[in-house]
Amino acid sequence: MNALQTDLYQLTMAAGYFSAGKHREVATFELFVRRLPYNRNYYLAAGLQQAVEYLLNLRFTADEIAWLRGLPQFANVAPEFFDYLAGLRFTGDVFGMREGTPVFPNEPILTVRAPLIEAQLVETYLLATIGFQTLIATKATRIVEAAAQASVVEFGTRRAHGPESGMLAARAAYIGGCIGSSNVEAGFRYGIPVYGTSAHSWVMSFASETESFRQLQQLLGEGTIYLIDSYDTLEGARKAIALGRPMAGVRLDSGNLFELSRGVRSILNEAGFHDVKIMATSDLNEYRILELTAAAAPIDLYGVGTDLATSADSPSLGAVYKLVELETDGVKRYTAKYSEEKHTRPGAKQVFRFRNRDLISCEWECPPGDEPVEALLRPVMVQGQLLEPLPDAYQARKTAQENIKRLPHALRSLYAPEEHPWRVEYSPELLALDARVKQSLRGAAR
Amino acid sequence: MNALQTDLYQLTMAAGYFSAGKHREVATFELFVRRLPYNRNYYLAAGLQQAVEYLLNLRFTADEIAWLRGLPQFANVAPEFFDYLAGLRFTGDVFGMREGTPVFPNEPILTVRAPLIEAQLVETYLLATIGFQTLIATKATRIVEAAAQASVVEFGTRRAHGPESGMLAARAAYIGGCIGSSNVEAGFRYGIPVYGTSAHSWVMSFASETESFRQLQQLLGEGTIYLIDSYDTLEGARKAIALGRPMAGVRLDSGNLFELSRGVRSILNEAGFHDVKIMATSDLNEYRILELTAAAAPIDLYGVGTDLATSADSPSLGAVYKLVELETDGVKRYTAKYSEEKHTRPGAKQVFRFRNRDLISCEWECPPGDEPVEALLRPVMVQGQLLEPLPDAYQARKTAQENIKRLPHALRSLYAPEEHPWRVEYSPELLALDARVKQSLRGAAR
Repeated sequence: MNALQTDLYQLTMAAGYFSAGKHREVATFELFVRRLPYNRNYYLAAGLQQAVEYLLNLRFTADEIAWLRGLPQFANVAPEFFDYLAGLRFTGDVFGMREGTPVFPNEPILTVRAPLIEAQLVETYLLATIGFQTLIATKATRIVEAAAQASVVEFGTRRAHGPESGMLAARAAYIGGCIGSSNVEAGFRYGIPVYGTSAHSWVMSFASETESFRQLQQLLGEGTIYLIDSYDTLEGARKAIALGRPMAGVRLDSGNLFELSRGVRSILNEAGFHDVKIMATSDLNEYRILELTAAAAPIDLYGVGTDLATSADSPSLGAVYKLVELETDGVKRYTAKYSEEKHTRPGAKQVFRFRNRDLISCEWECPPGDEPVEALLRPVMVQGQLLEPLPDAYQARKTAQENIKRLPHALRSLYAPEEHPWRVEYSPELLALDARVKQSLRGAAR
Repeated sequence: MNALQTDLYQLTMAAGYFSAGKHREVATFELFVRRLPYNRNYYLAAGLQQAVEYLLNLRFTADEIAWLRGLPQFANVAPEFFDYLAGLRFTGDVFGMREGTPVFPNEPILTVRAPLIEAQLVETYLLATIGFQTLIATKATRIVEAAAQASVVEFGTRRAHGPESGMLAARAAYIGGCIGSSNVEAGFRYGIPVYGTSAHSWVMSFASETESFRQLQQLLGEGTIYLIDSYDTLEGARKAIALGRPMAGVRLDSGNLFELSRGVRSILNEAGFHDVKIMATSDLNEYRILELTAAAAPIDLYGVGTDLATSADSPSLGAVYKLVELETDGVKRYTAKYSEEKHTRPGAKQVFRFRNRDLISCEWECPPGDEPVEALLRPVMVQGQLLEPLPDAYQARKTAQENIKRLPHALRSLYAPEEHPWRVEYSPELLALDARVKQSLRGAAR
């Protein structure tokens, strides 16, 4: 059903674990991001809902298993493995950060503890859905920040990386602070407010611009937003005014948005349409919007497409999913990777957030001292069952707003300061564990 | 079912066309790309198969329609419109370029001629699926070109823009010349060869590296590719050799790939394992691979992930879908947009490919002269029905290989020359039509 949405090596390893009798070992994996990319000061966690839906529904169909059996890679594999796959469900425990939580590098967003094969198989999907939504939610926070008092709507489905990607981008952008999206499916599935009125093809399909406006007004009434740049933007504004009320706004989709928004605002105000909003679209991103905000362009609403739905200036996140513990017959072994470029630290962790710093500790530690503190990794699934309904996109957006408001101002900049203004430390216990494991692995490699 | 995978304004416009009685007008839209982005000299068309599947299955469910009726945007809309939506199917004609065809800016990849509402509604999905697959197929051609005699496998699902995006990327990368992908679902659905053996977590889950290799060899036999960089790459190669045959290859996933591949090749050759292949992975792209090729690094197989599945150096395509004709009661009207930044040309078109140039003409024109020529836009759907089965991904990949081989060498460069080495011209008839329409629109705008 969805279990083939993975990399082949997850399945070849599964077959290997099965034949080595390791499939009952319990593995703990952590999903995290190694480094902040270009100009980002934090990430906004998103995608937990889709990760959990996937885990709850994980299974192979008979057709899929029959197809797998025919692959050359599985020629030597015992038939019992395929029976095992047919019955495979996700039976593990999951801890996760709430969607809408700001995250820093090396902090686990998600912890999966499950029988080795289950925990390994799900890596690819979890990385793809959490990585992507986190990427876009983060991009959205930047655009929303740049827009200041103006609102932002996500308009990028057509340029997203496929239709499903557009829907997930709409959800993530909403969590990141957009007021909604043009994506109708995201409205239907996730309750995200949907926006949009008309395109140039609408204007062009009528004999005149005025006729196209009249028809739109009849249709949308109080909600009418005219697209006024098909021929001449200022003339378009005058034609809209000539039709009188109702009118909610006008949209500018080309030209110099600073000058045109000022020109259109004057025309509207002179006609007494002070309450009519100006929306701007056209290849926007946080940097262009920041300029418009700084110049006090009278724009009330931005529609942002391509750059938002693809996180164009940094189109991937570099999330990883690493084995940190393995338990065989009740004996726990810690694992880590010590190559120079790609160091990971052993053992399941907790992330404690204090007022102005984070502490990454071993999972069993209590927070030190009596400062107010939040444990960011919360239990989500126990033995394959959802513990309680997850917050929906609306609640995740609220979580994000409240959390971002509390961040130091420097973190909310569109640019990265030389020194990162948020302290993330490891607990002494975790560092001691790390040293012990490093020492013991020196032997194992030989 | 899939009809909500669109932008809201497609539906508000649909309601407007319906209430204006325009829904029986027949519209022709063209999908094309305005400009080549950074370093690209051509695009490789891909995604037609998914576009057609979408059109063949286009429909609204009762639940979806009930939800739409509750949106504030549809408060004024007559109930007949929703009955119309309930019965809506795609009944139009589609012309398209074969997947695997190299394309240049302003050449339509797809033409849709259908009742106005149908043709408009499908814009968002068609742009997203054709735009994305074309983006990735194009990126793949660059990486395959850089790899020269070495083969390339797509490994990017985990960093793709969501799991579905990973599957589409696998398909597109294969069309663009990769020999396969790690994405299992893409293998199951599209018959794409699947690759992958083991990860670092496999090595780490055993008590020693050698034990992990032994288990892998037992499992995969002749197909065994060891991941040898978990501790020390050259030592890893020696441990693999110590286990003897069978062994297909080794994979390097970190460090200096040039030096390590040479070191590993020597060790393998000294042991008589001349036939054992070396695979390299680790944040690769066409630029890094080009350096390795130029340095004659002994790498037989590249696995490329993030940069391929996200087209990282140019993560969107800028495809557009423009109304070019509208027929009302048998009277045809040509449409175009003449804003300075975003000029489109009116009328349905054909693209003729000669040996060393393209001609964009009106759709009814015959190719001039008696040079050998190919009409790139072929009939795909007639009145909502598929004309004949489309070539599958395997055939599309062959089409691409044959077409790319015929392109001038300069077009296959990873960099863009100052003057584009392929002539794309408009026919005199098309230019004359363009001038007439431009003249007539001057009036309509007023």
